[in-house]
Amino acid sequence: MKVGVLGAGQLGRMLALAGYPLGMRFRFLDPASEAPASHLAEQVVGEYEDEAALDRFVEGLDVVTYEFENVPVETVRRLGSRGCSVYPPPEALEVAQDRLVEKRFLRELGIATPEFASISTYDELKAAVSRIGLPAVLKTGRMGYDGKGQRVLREPGDVTEAWESLGGRALILESFVSFERELSVLAVRGRGGESVCYPLVQNEHRTGILRRSVCPAPMVTPELQSEAEDLARRVLDRLGYVGVLAIELFEVEGKLLANEMAPRVHNSGHWTLEGAETSQFENHLRSVVGLPLGSTAPRGYSVMLNLIGKVPDSASVLAVPGAHLHLYGKAERPGRKLGHITLSADDPQMLPSRVALVEELL
Amino acid sequence: MKVGVLGAGQLGRMLALAGYPLGMRFRFLDPASEAPASHLAEQVVGEYEDEAALDRFVEGLDVVTYEFENVPVETVRRLGSRGCSVYPPPEALEVAQDRLVEKRFLRELGIATPEFASISTYDELKAAVSRIGLPAVLKTGRMGYDGKGQRVLREPGDVTEAWESLGGRALILESFVSFERELSVLAVRGRGGESVCYPLVQNEHRTGILRRSVCPAPMVTPELQSEAEDLARRVLDRLGYVGVLAIELFEVEGKLLANEMAPRVHNSGHWTLEGAETSQFENHLRSVVGLPLGSTAPRGYSVMLNLIGKVPDSASVLAVPGAHLHLYGKAERPGRKLGHITLSADDPQMLPSRVALVEELL
Repeated sequence: MKVGVLGAGQLGRMLALAGYPLGMRFRFLDPASEAPASHLAEQVVGEYEDEAALDRFVEGLDVVTYEFENVPVETVRRLGSRGCSVYPPPEALEVAQDRLVEKRFLRELGIATPEFASISTYDELKAAVSRIGLPAVLKTGRMGYDGKGQRVLREPGDVTEAWESLGGRALILESFVSFERELSVLAVRGRGGESVCYPLVQNEHRTGILRRSVCPAPMVTPELQSEAEDLARRVLDRLGYVGVLAIELFEVEGKLLANEMAPRVHNSGHWTLEGAETSQFENHLRSVVGLPLGSTAPRGYSVMLNLIGKVPDSASVLAVPGAHLHLYGKAERPGRKLGHITLSADDPQMLPSRVALVEELL
Repeated sequence: MKVGVLGAGQLGRMLALAGYPLGMRFRFLDPASEAPASHLAEQVVGEYEDEAALDRFVEGLDVVTYEFENVPVETVRRLGSRGCSVYPPPEALEVAQDRLVEKRFLRELGIATPEFASISTYDELKAAVSRIGLPAVLKTGRMGYDGKGQRVLREPGDVTEAWESLGGRALILESFVSFERELSVLAVRGRGGESVCYPLVQNEHRTGILRRSVCPAPMVTPELQSEAEDLARRVLDRLGYVGVLAIELFEVEGKLLANEMAPRVHNSGHWTLEGAETSQFENHLRSVVGLPLGSTAPRGYSVMLNLIGKVPDSASVLAVPGAHLHLYGKAERPGRKLGHITLSADDPQMLPSRVALVEELL
């Protein structure tokens, strides 16, 4: 089995590391020649719209997948029209690439989301602020990630400034949810329609970037887990989805609101490398090539900490009991995800002190 | 850190897969261009004695290690004389490459071994058979692996035939030990002299090839574990060893006899990928680059089954609960190690039925 991956970042890199033991080979397409996956597999260096690059990329592949949701839908359709299976399906990309389409799609499936409004003019923004109230978040409809392309509106005076910064594109205004916590659910659907879900994970963001995930999330009732699985399965089945899908959720008064979805392996699933019977990366690959899905049962308790902007000294990290280091081979740059550390333990009581030891190094 | 590995077989491949998350890069040297590690790292295709190949191999490396014990000692010394650190040290290779040197070395350290005799003539063989008794095993002193270069002598009539088949080289006659079971201990020593050991593993060979390891070995008393760790540490310290060392043992009447050692990661340690807190591959790399060693604590219970000669259907294997598949990307050939499957469970009672399901596929 030769798997093509659009995007050679850290997610692609971890996919390849999970797929080699299954006997798979990999080829990446990425415009950057020094991408994280480029040292451990074949790579075609080229733009996603470059026909010649796509020709070289697709030659001899059994299946194609992607590691980020902003890959052009047209690229995925082109590959599909050449008889190459591409999973997840392009419909999932179309939904995930546009926050407005995404929110409407979720609502159509009966899944609760924060209040939102489509914004294309300043007057629409003012009207939406009156309707939804403040605080609220103004976001670009497309191409936002890690908190980019967003402004929080706290008081009426913020409206004009936010419009000046983001206006002129399709925007969405969302109510600012005072959630109890952020959770995410990762679900996997196979080519035969079967699906499995990982336990809910509790996430903490700072400046729009995921910092920490606690896995499984503490104090999750069976009802909450099954509410999350139920909404994830509605999305999977409606899209005829194949692969791993992540849905970010807010917990508000014991209920879940869907914030956004990512049609790919997800940062809040990195803990599964050590913390689950089958990692999200292996399960994504199993599903896209048509192998049986693996158990999503957790193994002990994990806390995942992202390494943002700076990489700590490896020796100090590895001296911490239960620490598993994952570096992506990227140069340091403020705000950049350079790696992550998973702390694992059979006894959850052991984790806070280990987390504290690692956080001192960050 | 850029790590060079002599040999690009499955052990090298699994080293690279374990090292990428630590931010390492890899370059392999191997005469075969389609070796298991060749798809996932740089490779110099060349013989181990080829000066020009060694030059290209060593350029820019921080440290060199090896994945098999028959790499020429001269090659390792040459790399060392160019200022490149090579671990484990060449002394370990010298000992492990010659069964007679190895047995004498173990005895000098006060480690019990089967009875043995050096054989270079037919008369010496006859005299040794009288002294040691039958059954006994006649082995070539060098270059044997997976049962190759060995003849079992059961009755006096076998002596001439074995001599005709193996004579003319330096040989060793060893008493055939009627052991209760075969065990192995894997030990890791860091550059600072610190060391850790994995729990004893119970191994079953068939036609000289490892078929199955039960990990940790059942019914191991603390005394037996500490006897194994003590003898392993004597070997590590005497050699100023750095890296993973495997010692194969026979258990006879509750005591351990050392059979042979391998100065490298070892097939009986593959279970550590899922079954231990830190895999043997990661610990080998941590030690050779000077990082702190990781915990060797087991995670649940594992049985490792080798895939010999033929690869079963992946989908059928992965449908077995707790099955983790590791394929090496090698073509099928009788007697060849093509991969392994690790079955893991928190409850050891779950394992026999899972093993039975997989064995039906082999």
